Amino acid sequence: MTWKRTHNCGELTAENTGEEIILNGWVSTRRDLGGVIFIDLRDRYGITQIVFNETDKELHEKAEQLRGEYVIGVKGMVEERDEENVNPELYTGDIEITVTDLQIYAKAETPPFEIKEDIATGEEIRLTYRYLDLRRPDLQRNMILRSDFYQSVRSFYHERDFVEVETPVLMKSTPEGARDYLVPSRVNPGKFFALPQSPQTYKQLLMVSGYDRYFQIVKCFRDEDLRADRQPEFTQIDVEMSFVDEDAVMSSTEDLMQKLMKETIGEDIEPSFKRMTYEEAMKTYGTDKPDTRFGLEFADFSELVEDSEFKIFSGTVEKGGAVLGITVPGQGSMGRGAIDRLTERVQDETGAGGLIYIKLNEEDGVKCSVEKFLKEETVEAMVEKADAAMGDLVLILAGPSPDVYHQMSKLRLMMGEEHNLINEDEFDFLWVTDFPLVKWSREEQRYQALHHPFTAPYQEDVDKLEEDPVSVRSRAYDLVLNGYEIGGGSIRIHDRELQKRMFSLLGIDEEEAEERFGFLLEAFKYGAPPHGGIALGVDRIIMILSGGNSLRDVIAFPKNQKAQSLMDNSPDYVDQEQLDELHIRLKRGVGPEHE
Amino acid sequence: MTWKRTHNCGELTAENTGEEIILNGWVSTRRDLGGVIFIDLRDRYGITQIVFNETDKELHEKAEQLRGEYVIGVKGMVEERDEENVNPELYTGDIEITVTDLQIYAKAETPPFEIKEDIATGEEIRLTYRYLDLRRPDLQRNMILRSDFYQSVRSFYHERDFVEVETPVLMKSTPEGARDYLVPSRVNPGKFFALPQSPQTYKQLLMVSGYDRYFQIVKCFRDEDLRADRQPEFTQIDVEMSFVDEDAVMSSTEDLMQKLMKETIGEDIEPSFKRMTYEEAMKTYGTDKPDTRFGLEFADFSELVEDSEFKIFSGTVEKGGAVLGITVPGQGSMGRGAIDRLTERVQDETGAGGLIYIKLNEEDGVKCSVEKFLKEETVEAMVEKADAAMGDLVLILAGPSPDVYHQMSKLRLMMGEEHNLINEDEFDFLWVTDFPLVKWSREEQRYQALHHPFTAPYQEDVDKLEEDPVSVRSRAYDLVLNGYEIGGGSIRIHDRELQKRMFSLLGIDEEEAEERFGFLLEAFKYGAPPHGGIALGVDRIIMILSGGNSLRDVIAFPKNQKAQSLMDNSPDYVDQEQLDELHIRLKRGVGPEHE
Repeated sequence: MTWKRTHNCGELTAENTGEEIILNGWVSTRRDLGGVIFIDLRDRYGITQIVFNETDKELHEKAEQLRGEYVIGVKGMVEERDEENVNPELYTGDIEITVTDLQIYAKAETPPFEIKEDIATGEEIRLTYRYLDLRRPDLQRNMILRSDFYQSVRSFYHERDFVEVETPVLMKSTPEGARDYLVPSRVNPGKFFALPQSPQTYKQLLMVSGYDRYFQIVKCFRDEDLRADRQPEFTQIDVEMSFVDEDAVMSSTEDLMQKLMKETIGEDIEPSFKRMTYEEAMKTYGTDKPDTRFGLEFADFSELVEDSEFKIFSGTVEKGGAVLGITVPGQGSMGRGAIDRLTERVQDETGAGGLIYIKLNEEDGVKCSVEKFLKEETVEAMVEKADAAMGDLVLILAGPSPDVYHQMSKLRLMMGEEHNLINEDEFDFLWVTDFPLVKWSREEQRYQALHHPFTAPYQEDVDKLEEDPVSVRSRAYDLVLNGYEIGGGSIRIHDRELQKRMFSLLGIDEEEAEERFGFLLEAFKYGAPPHGGIALGVDRIIMILSGGNSLRDVIAFPKNQKAQSLMDNSPDYVDQEQLDELHIRLKRGVGPEHE
Repeated sequence: MTWKRTHNCGELTAENTGEEIILNGWVSTRRDLGGVIFIDLRDRYGITQIVFNETDKELHEKAEQLRGEYVIGVKGMVEERDEENVNPELYTGDIEITVTDLQIYAKAETPPFEIKEDIATGEEIRLTYRYLDLRRPDLQRNMILRSDFYQSVRSFYHERDFVEVETPVLMKSTPEGARDYLVPSRVNPGKFFALPQSPQTYKQLLMVSGYDRYFQIVKCFRDEDLRADRQPEFTQIDVEMSFVDEDAVMSSTEDLMQKLMKETIGEDIEPSFKRMTYEEAMKTYGTDKPDTRFGLEFADFSELVEDSEFKIFSGTVEKGGAVLGITVPGQGSMGRGAIDRLTERVQDETGAGGLIYIKLNEEDGVKCSVEKFLKEETVEAMVEKADAAMGDLVLILAGPSPDVYHQMSKLRLMMGEEHNLINEDEFDFLWVTDFPLVKWSREEQRYQALHHPFTAPYQEDVDKLEEDPVSVRSRAYDLVLNGYEIGGGSIRIHDRELQKRMFSLLGIDEEEAEERFGFLLEAFKYGAPPHGGIALGVDRIIMILSGGNSLRDVIAFPKNQKAQSLMDNSPDYVDQEQLDELHIRLKRGVGPEHE
């Protein structure tokens, strides 16, 4: 029988001296010193040193069997350590346990990697033995942080009278944006459910139903091509509110983040966040999710150089492109070799054609890499516009728009990291607002919603919906933290006619709109309140709070970049019988017999 | 623009008299009285009466447009009602709002059914217009109860240091018990994920990983043939603990239920629950989930009648069957007609061959329906064994075992309901323990786990695992509330060799065990702690707490009995392109073209 512990491995101190206690845990390390066996016994709560003396021969012999990761129970007495043996790094470091009885619950083979912080083991091995990886202190910290995070979020919303409603996982397939994961129905042959990309329509229906304030921490699914920071299933905080405008949703989200930062990592942040329009973000940082922990804002040289004899500049501007610069402080003396290497890296990593610079240093004065093609006053004007001072380096890219903005955005990040311009301890929140409602997709030859088809346009822009759609601003807002988009939301359309116009603009004809979103259009007939909301990405927020840079380190059982779970070898082939019941077959040439 | 409300529709009282306020909400009812328009304005929080006088002509005209379910905002002044107009049924019944400004956010057509409590509308219509059904006060109460319930559960476990971990929704298919829902993988052609029937293996792995205490409120999925009280997706409270025995899990669950009952419906319950072995439950109530809010325990007459000349009795016992009786109090004078109808109903609904009775009343004395075949002392012995007194009715069934137990169990429930023996306000919790580990499946010609293959056998029964498996008791426990199984759990196997023996007993050979559960067997190599847990059915518990009898009334967007969502018409056919990408085809003869 399992012994009921009196304490866990992280709580005994000198105050417990003399107590008879029972501990359960894992053998973390074992040292034998002059016949005495010292073991660090580990559980989730901490480590306690336990000691087997030679006095009890039988017990000592049993203890000699113990190896790393054995699971044991011990009875014993708490004793204060001698002064010189105190371990100040351990909460329990003042005491040790003199063991009087031992039970081995389970033996253990030597794990394929060490159970400790910061191991260099390849991720494939770690994912295969995920249950051992999850024993390591860094992952345990992440999972516990995540657990605390959930509870903070939920108590925040519950205290504010939000109703937590579970929305279905088996829902209708309405592909828009990403691909749906599909689930064949056995009872309805040939038909499929889809897993939610988000509970968007459900939460809007809940507003129509009068729930007023809704929230849920919910799993969502996107069958996308996976990049380093994507997972097939991800978790979001999903929120919707009735009778609100943008400010109400944003300020409630700010309150949430303030509480979360305080309660999970003890960080105090500003009660309200900076705001920036999409246009300003693109012009200044070349991205709609700028990392504003550091400067290096873009200077637009296009007007200054449009008449220049330097064809790369004037030609670019003539063709509608832009010439952009950023000023890197303190790098005005960068040597030729370093600049060459940087140029190569810029070409490799940003796709820019070349890199032009102006160095400002005491030795050479103001030195531009293409000064022979430029008038002196042009260079001076550029320096002034870039707000560059002696000692600085101005880096310049020229190219078609919007590519050059993206390239400069990458270069800016590169410089920020390389020259330690980013305060890693800072949490810098930013709202980006006033997104365009739609963009033109060259690929699909139609307008696409920048957020989703339910986002409301600015009232004063509605008249331009048909004649000049790309100029219509949406009532959407994204929340950016340290350059990551951690959330996004909008005020929604709640008018049936406007929603129909929106579908039509997106190339969804009436029949298709009816088939895919008929229930929402129907719902809007019966009194839909004005409403809006937001969705926040839990995985990414936890990743940032934990100081890590991989989503896989904050998800208990993640998939790899091929959407596979290496631990249990899923997805996998299934029995023919299962497929038969679901009324489906594999395509020709696919299946275990073709491996 | 949406007006920011100063109050909701459920909070203004006489104390607010004279205040200028803003409300938003739905027009619930409208009455016109002598030129004055009275409207009950409704939101989730309550109802407030608003009044449009004739003084402001323009405003009054606008108000005349208002119809039921219109969504509006009003500005106005809080005024105390005249004594005779006070509505004591309404929290806001002391006041009304004299409106000074009105905004119509959305018009509404007449809904297909009334937005009020207890409507007689068919469920198909209600499910089609679920967003309107969810506006009704009874469903809103259920959803809010559910929301409160979640928060109580979570704070309970968080306070006790349980770690909340999200387990994957896309997992490995390991069909055992119910059918899996499958999800084809696009990136891994021909391979499939399954949706979890429960996160069983994951939570056990978390114990191997040292998380010590785990909980999660989690969606699970079973592709079963749906009955009235099943849904394809359901929600469970999932719990696992290390270094515990049965008592620890059960007592922690008792604490949870106590808190839940108190916090959600204000009910005080016993701090610890009755316990009964599976054997006792079957013998006494003919079911492993007895409703113990009332008596009517079975009396086993088999021994008394085994030598009887009445062949139906003695023959039944001879063939290994049983003769069972229950005593219905106060029905000893039931007339011939009523007994005939009861007999017919018993045959119809329980499948029993016939119904025998003993009536005890002052007029006739003790009267058995088959007394001419029985000795008087046999009837007397039966009356005594059944603990029947004057005025009672003993109902007797004879038949093969276990069928007769099931039949008698149904008859018992029937009598309990019909004769009001059940206290509907009582919450009667019961643990059922000591289940058999396995049962023999005639259909599949193999042993099946009564719970699941990871349930630990009694240590003292392990030796019988191979030679007499059905006699092995498991360390499983089910929680029963008012005759519903609301949860079940067990102490798990944590030893690799024992787990292998269990798989082998279930007819899973070594290769198959490796392929399906290899990761768990592998995990057990590296130090698995003794552990156990429980899963509780959220939907069913909420259903009982809400006093309802349909799971669909406590789930926001439920499926019907064909696993369809009538509101959005899912599941539905999908584009060929989607199937192509997933490397699957429909079977011949299936698809939209064959409808």
